[in-house]
Amino acid sequence: MTYSFADRVMALQPSAIREILKFTSDPEVISFAAGNPAPEAFPVEAIRAISADIFEHHPIEALQYSITEGYTPLRNTLKKYMSEKYDSVKDFDELIITTGAQQVMELTTKSLCNEGDTILCEAPSFIGSLNAFRSYGVNLRGIPVDNDGINLEALETALKEEKKAKFLYVIPNFQNPSGVTMSLAKRKAVYALAKQYGVMILEDNPYGEVRFAGEPLPNIKSMDEDGIVIYAGSFSKVISSGMRVGYAIAPTEVMQKIIVCKQVSDVHTTIWAQMVIDRFMTGGGFEAHLERNRGIYRGKCNLMIELMERHLPDSIRFVRPQGGLFLWCQLPDSIDMPAFAKRAVERYKVAVVPGNAFLTDESQPCNAVRLNFSTPTNEQMVKGMELLGKCFADFEA
Amino acid sequence: MTYSFADRVMALQPSAIREILKFTSDPEVISFAAGNPAPEAFPVEAIRAISADIFEHHPIEALQYSITEGYTPLRNTLKKYMSEKYDSVKDFDELIITTGAQQVMELTTKSLCNEGDTILCEAPSFIGSLNAFRSYGVNLRGIPVDNDGINLEALETALKEEKKAKFLYVIPNFQNPSGVTMSLAKRKAVYALAKQYGVMILEDNPYGEVRFAGEPLPNIKSMDEDGIVIYAGSFSKVISSGMRVGYAIAPTEVMQKIIVCKQVSDVHTTIWAQMVIDRFMTGGGFEAHLERNRGIYRGKCNLMIELMERHLPDSIRFVRPQGGLFLWCQLPDSIDMPAFAKRAVERYKVAVVPGNAFLTDESQPCNAVRLNFSTPTNEQMVKGMELLGKCFADFEA
Repeated sequence: MTYSFADRVMALQPSAIREILKFTSDPEVISFAAGNPAPEAFPVEAIRAISADIFEHHPIEALQYSITEGYTPLRNTLKKYMSEKYDSVKDFDELIITTGAQQVMELTTKSLCNEGDTILCEAPSFIGSLNAFRSYGVNLRGIPVDNDGINLEALETALKEEKKAKFLYVIPNFQNPSGVTMSLAKRKAVYALAKQYGVMILEDNPYGEVRFAGEPLPNIKSMDEDGIVIYAGSFSKVISSGMRVGYAIAPTEVMQKIIVCKQVSDVHTTIWAQMVIDRFMTGGGFEAHLERNRGIYRGKCNLMIELMERHLPDSIRFVRPQGGLFLWCQLPDSIDMPAFAKRAVERYKVAVVPGNAFLTDESQPCNAVRLNFSTPTNEQMVKGMELLGKCFADFEA
Repeated sequence: MTYSFADRVMALQPSAIREILKFTSDPEVISFAAGNPAPEAFPVEAIRAISADIFEHHPIEALQYSITEGYTPLRNTLKKYMSEKYDSVKDFDELIITTGAQQVMELTTKSLCNEGDTILCEAPSFIGSLNAFRSYGVNLRGIPVDNDGINLEALETALKEEKKAKFLYVIPNFQNPSGVTMSLAKRKAVYALAKQYGVMILEDNPYGEVRFAGEPLPNIKSMDEDGIVIYAGSFSKVISSGMRVGYAIAPTEVMQKIIVCKQVSDVHTTIWAQMVIDRFMTGGGFEAHLERNRGIYRGKCNLMIELMERHLPDSIRFVRPQGGLFLWCQLPDSIDMPAFAKRAVERYKVAVVPGNAFLTDESQPCNAVRLNFSTPTNEQMVKGMELLGKCFADFEA
């Protein structure tokens, strides 16, 4: 049979990142290309004990159908947490549990965007979100990212030009992949511009709790007096990525559409995972766990930077991230990035992600690569950075 | 702010079933309106032991990111099971794990259908699937269901008339809500017609393992020599609904699109749940568990039919189901169905689902109601059917 697919999926191409990840199934390859949390960051003992308790005392609740909006105790715990700690749940807002933050991107696009509408995003940005947007046939317009966040002039130009812009997608904390943190002044300016031009903001904050340097800055959602911000939160880098639990905070009117879309998508998120997370958050050890996690990532980030300074040429530029899992390295103009990434994985068996994978238009030139410091062991980092140094030497020779 | 939503979600209306379910939060209401598995059907002890073992020996695997296609051991277990027991995995097929079978409906529609395309479905049919289809702006064409399955003349007429038909959605075993099982002759005829008109089939089989009477019939997927059938399976009525684990079997070329759509939707399904199900299926007690389950549902179905015959008038017609969770009751023409359902819940505090909720066009007349026998306890069934009898008497007086 000759299959006929929807137009929206015909536009989805296998991405550059997938091509590189193919190599990482080779156990000899040291991968700086992933985005997995450090295994030692999972609170294994706590989850084991909580899970056993759930099956001892509430097995039916954990195994039966539940409501689309999420496990009520977890929703209440999160509302309190996000309200008291971050002032990010407004009177007009509702909070629901999603199957990872990825689902927030999917449901927001499905609820708000017709084919041919435009989504404004930072360029570079998180490829999983860009692909979720693309899967609804929308146009993406990329806005450059400066060292203190999205470029405001370019954003205002885009807001003026894009008559069908539905929302602006931003990752204000330790942006993936650039590592940049948006300044407070820019957060305020972004909110004001979005309000002025009647465009919503989708604020994605998967790494907010993984800040290991600098002072916390307010979420854009905390400034939302007008009901224009949809906030996406995640437990993937905080408790467990394999559990697939995230959450959305949005004005009730918007959330009603998101809930209908979630209902037809997966009915609800795995209830056991929601119960475990609620108990972990309320059990007394959550803040200590977050602090321990920050220590792990601070150590791994510092090690990678130290190794870069030792092995790689000074001509490489990067923003020292205040959190998250990634370093974004601008190669000197003299080096051809695609050739470098290819040689690194083929000759030296070290995988990095070519930066153009994160652009709204992958065919545009980009001379950066993304390095991940959370997944490799420290030993792998030591060896891998030494090998990357040799790869650079090949190009500079 | 005045929000502007996507056209596709503007068409989604709160359904009649939701209106009835509102009443069921009242603890005094006896609900025959749900679709939850019987709590006693969950293999609690086995899951408790398996889960403890996973956190003892493989905690990181259970908590870390995994691949979109699903946990490889479970995929292999299921491929073997569905191939050896049901001949439902062809050489050209791939099998992936989904976040419940609901996600198969969502991903299939997203992959195959443009707005304005048509999906053919049995009428009545499962409301969750109909709403997933509607959420992509497709047109639904309902085909009547006879006592031995979909009406073939109406199906052929629809196939001739609907030039933009993308697939036919059927539930051959103990169809929800009608309880009808499609005969073998009709399964063959449906396959032949779909092939002839170049339309795919989405075969949904959530209740196949809950057959408690009659002889098993081959899946339509087992007849698929031409790569035109997408099969949706579920563990919701077999192991646990709250775990949210289902699966899809489809020709590889189609599956590649479905996988891309799943990746942008939720990355992957909760890995712990996939690990638990794999171990339960391979641990040796699976067939005995299925047999025990069938006994539970056989008993509850027989009890409800016995109570109907005792308390309700003979003028009510229903097909005795060979499996599943539901009885579909055609009321006599003299009774106004919406008034009956309203009176039942308001005066007698017994909730039933008005049959029109399951039509492709809810505004069409329908004089049936759906009764669920899996969720209520036997005591609730005894009391509830007695009350429904009184409600009928009010109308016949």
